[in-house]
Amino acid sequence: MVNFKEEESLHMLNHSCAHLMAQAVKHLYPNAKFWVGPVVEEGFYYDIDLGEDVIKEDDLARIEKEMKKCSKDAKHIIRKELTKDEALNLFKEDSYKIDLIERMDEENVISCYTQGDFTDLCRGPHMSNTKEIKYFKLIKFSGAYFKGDSSNKMLQRIYGVCFPTQEELDNHLKELEEMKMRDHRKIGKDLEIFMISDLVGKGLPLWLPKGSELRRRLERYITDKEISSGYQHVTTPSLGSVNLYKTSGHWDHYKENMFPKMKIDEEEFVLRPMNCPHHMLIFANGIHSYKELPIRYAEIANDFRYEESGAVCGLERVRCMTQNDSHIFCRPDQIKEEFAGVVKLILAVYQDMGITDYTCRLSLRDPLDKEKYYDDDEMWIKAENELREVLNGLHITYFEATGEAAFYGPKLDVEIKTAIGHELTLSTIQLDFLLPQKFELSYVDENGEKVRPVVIHRAILGTLDRFVAFYLEETKGYLPLWLAPIQVQIIPVHKEYHGIYAEEVYKRLKEKGFRVELDNRNEKLGYKLRESVIKKIPYMLILGQNEVDNHSVSYRRAGSEETITVSLEEFIELLNQDVQNKVRYDK
Amino acid sequence: MVNFKEEESLHMLNHSCAHLMAQAVKHLYPNAKFWVGPVVEEGFYYDIDLGEDVIKEDDLARIEKEMKKCSKDAKHIIRKELTKDEALNLFKEDSYKIDLIERMDEENVISCYTQGDFTDLCRGPHMSNTKEIKYFKLIKFSGAYFKGDSSNKMLQRIYGVCFPTQEELDNHLKELEEMKMRDHRKIGKDLEIFMISDLVGKGLPLWLPKGSELRRRLERYITDKEISSGYQHVTTPSLGSVNLYKTSGHWDHYKENMFPKMKIDEEEFVLRPMNCPHHMLIFANGIHSYKELPIRYAEIANDFRYEESGAVCGLERVRCMTQNDSHIFCRPDQIKEEFAGVVKLILAVYQDMGITDYTCRLSLRDPLDKEKYYDDDEMWIKAENELREVLNGLHITYFEATGEAAFYGPKLDVEIKTAIGHELTLSTIQLDFLLPQKFELSYVDENGEKVRPVVIHRAILGTLDRFVAFYLEETKGYLPLWLAPIQVQIIPVHKEYHGIYAEEVYKRLKEKGFRVELDNRNEKLGYKLRESVIKKIPYMLILGQNEVDNHSVSYRRAGSEETITVSLEEFIELLNQDVQNKVRYDK
Repeated sequence: MVNFKEEESLHMLNHSCAHLMAQAVKHLYPNAKFWVGPVVEEGFYYDIDLGEDVIKEDDLARIEKEMKKCSKDAKHIIRKELTKDEALNLFKEDSYKIDLIERMDEENVISCYTQGDFTDLCRGPHMSNTKEIKYFKLIKFSGAYFKGDSSNKMLQRIYGVCFPTQEELDNHLKELEEMKMRDHRKIGKDLEIFMISDLVGKGLPLWLPKGSELRRRLERYITDKEISSGYQHVTTPSLGSVNLYKTSGHWDHYKENMFPKMKIDEEEFVLRPMNCPHHMLIFANGIHSYKELPIRYAEIANDFRYEESGAVCGLERVRCMTQNDSHIFCRPDQIKEEFAGVVKLILAVYQDMGITDYTCRLSLRDPLDKEKYYDDDEMWIKAENELREVLNGLHITYFEATGEAAFYGPKLDVEIKTAIGHELTLSTIQLDFLLPQKFELSYVDENGEKVRPVVIHRAILGTLDRFVAFYLEETKGYLPLWLAPIQVQIIPVHKEYHGIYAEEVYKRLKEKGFRVELDNRNEKLGYKLRESVIKKIPYMLILGQNEVDNHSVSYRRAGSEETITVSLEEFIELLNQDVQNKVRYDK
Repeated sequence: MVNFKEEESLHMLNHSCAHLMAQAVKHLYPNAKFWVGPVVEEGFYYDIDLGEDVIKEDDLARIEKEMKKCSKDAKHIIRKELTKDEALNLFKEDSYKIDLIERMDEENVISCYTQGDFTDLCRGPHMSNTKEIKYFKLIKFSGAYFKGDSSNKMLQRIYGVCFPTQEELDNHLKELEEMKMRDHRKIGKDLEIFMISDLVGKGLPLWLPKGSELRRRLERYITDKEISSGYQHVTTPSLGSVNLYKTSGHWDHYKENMFPKMKIDEEEFVLRPMNCPHHMLIFANGIHSYKELPIRYAEIANDFRYEESGAVCGLERVRCMTQNDSHIFCRPDQIKEEFAGVVKLILAVYQDMGITDYTCRLSLRDPLDKEKYYDDDEMWIKAENELREVLNGLHITYFEATGEAAFYGPKLDVEIKTAIGHELTLSTIQLDFLLPQKFELSYVDENGEKVRPVVIHRAILGTLDRFVAFYLEETKGYLPLWLAPIQVQIIPVHKEYHGIYAEEVYKRLKEKGFRVELDNRNEKLGYKLRESVIKKIPYMLILGQNEVDNHSVSYRRAGSEETITVSLEEFIELLNQDVQNKVRYDK
């Protein structure tokens, strides 16, 4: 998606378009006063004081029409430089402009731009003629407090975009539309995945029954996968004493991302931002022989992090998250094998999910930066080489990022880009030579000596919350059958005539363990079908007289218009195949 | 288990025994000074200042021996009454007694008791002769700060019990021993279920891999059972805004059981003590027709409650718990059916668990107490009658407790008694007419009118934590196969000769989905067997030459000494039977 602020040619065009819009607004609302009209990442906007008037949806078209007229007028856009006094005099009727001018230094050149009957204070630069500002669209509007202060007056903010050609504008609008359709917050609403409530709080989504089912499928899938790959799951409380985080170092280095502490009797507790310290304590709870290693503790763990209220976003960025976390305790000579094992597990999970579009970044230390990095040349060189060897051996494409390693060891991040353009780290593998020291961990080697193990932090699905956000966008909401909360929606054509058969089919599919819903409401068939389409239920079963007579079912697969009639047993076989092969319907 | 404090005859005997112990201690430690020696629930104790001396394990036997001698001396125990001045004079060398006497009112009769060479300040009453104090046992000892203040001197506290007959003493000691063996904290350690760490905090157990496996089995079992019974699981964050709990009323009525609030930006959050408010919001999120009801939201939910640090106990009483919770939203005319449904579900779960020893208490309002109870006579009468009808109809034995209902509605509690004598409410069903009001819940009835639903709170396993504590004690740690973290332990007689076959058997059982461990360590057979017995693993497979030759397995079932040889396929069939029938091994 284009960045209007950073692309220079678009920047000037869009800024000029903001003036064009202001001119049009002034024509329609002669009392309008203008505050600021900058170009931002997503286009331009202008904050406008319309007195008592409030912008409504159909005002946008009116303003656009007037803008077209101003554009056709083909007025030159003329720059004029002013002294501060001249500027103050020119805009003496306009308190907003006075406010701006008064904060300017005497030395600065003050300029204004005029196009026909409209003059605005502006640094520029601008296009030379209004006729160059032709392919624009007003996107949205909102209220915005003057200077962002809720005790001030609410201004009207109108957003727009402008392009050099109609084609570019059309493409952009199409992209915007698609983004909106793919935004997990929209899909999450359509599919009844989650809700947000002010009474619970910002960044704290509640998972509705269907979302909870999806989450549970993911949770059981990854837990079982990990256990069969030699992991041991543990369950630890989502808080700990402040001392625990002092021991781990989080209290010194990560406190600003944590919730505030809570004092109980004489103890101080804090919600955990991550669960490494708890897993360290479990390892420290026993005596371990070198023969027992590697030990791999995993947890579906609730963690809590402070995020600014403006930064939280649906399920993608939350304050209470569930991590698919693990810590592997191994001997130094096992690093390579364990790292390879995790990489393979990540790839196996991606294959199950049908994720093919990702980037691997190997973050290494900057060997010259002796300040930032844990000081053990031999360890770093050996570990970094081993990670490279593993990646090369597995023929994985990756790029190296020198100076991007954590201070405690090198790491591999697997990154994806969401449909709405956010870059996210999905999976991560991090070597850690430091935490075992802080918790004084040890195992007994073949000579009976106590030796420090290495810890590998790793996450595969990252957090379940963010993964679901990503996966809803990735699949456009067309969840594969094995994960879909409702797999089959049964719709009798007439409840009266086909309801009993629908009931039979429902029971049979339930018996077979499928997640089925029977829509026996007294609604029209078309209405029910439309609802099922919005909910993107993988299979719609439409049962009418033909199906009753032949003991068959007619199905429609999500995203398809085609209706196919088969026997019930064939349909069950089809479902089994789709589950087993983890078929994706969006591809 | 007997309560020494409340059973009057035992009370006097035990108090006299405390004096006997003090006399014996004085003989052995002539400088001993005595603080208080009360009778408590579990027997008597005395807090003693031994100067620099500290009681050690074998001192108890020495003291007991001396007590026997004092008993045989058959001294009369003589009461004498004193004025405050006389008392102060008599005990003038003893600062502890002076402390006690000085705090007595002038009007009170002060008395002391003398037996032979020993006199103690005491209110009495006492036995008449030391020869009556014959069947006693010193149980344990500990340090105890004078007046419980850690800045004061540490005194020596010795606990004991005394009975009228040897037989009663023997029975009691046996019971104590059994209780110790059945205490879930001991079993939890043997079976590696959980650990406690001061660095995490009091009342915050960490579930080790085997405990987590057990928990996961329970969690999946109850979740699947509920879903197949028409419940919809949801997942909600374990905190909420303070306003949420103001709306629900918890902030006013339950705050002292909650964790302290946390301020983030301008919002105040608090860890949730229960999840009713979250479920109310999910219901309120949609418009519901009368046809959709009942709606049953369930959750495996993390909740947090403040418990005094002295009250926390293993997994039984914790500060961070996982509830098996649900809220049913129904029409008033559905109360009876829904209540019956929950009762049946509870009984079905108990049957699966083999729980037969429980008490049902139907808690009703006191109709005369208009202050305490939500005021709606008709509602109360109707609801209480309906609950009774359901219980009678299901032939359930219960007792009624008038005035024990919650203020918001009547309830049924199912109570059990743990092996160590704690009484616990395992399951509960509570009608609630109030919370739907507070959250302004409604559904649309057949006339299109908005009507308030009724809420039924219910828990079946209670909290997973407490349920595991109870079930470990109930089964003495002999977990049924379907729940056991490790189901089969394979032990080759000699790794060298039978290791390969053991490996084969291991793989075959793994393939079949069983949780198996192969003990291939270079340890002696006896050592491995003993370890497996301590861990109470349901099946031990001992594989030697005979088994290798015949492709058979020899198994020993937990708690049994018998070894039975069968084919591997027969053994798999046996395991399947045990899982399917949820066989209990402790009965």
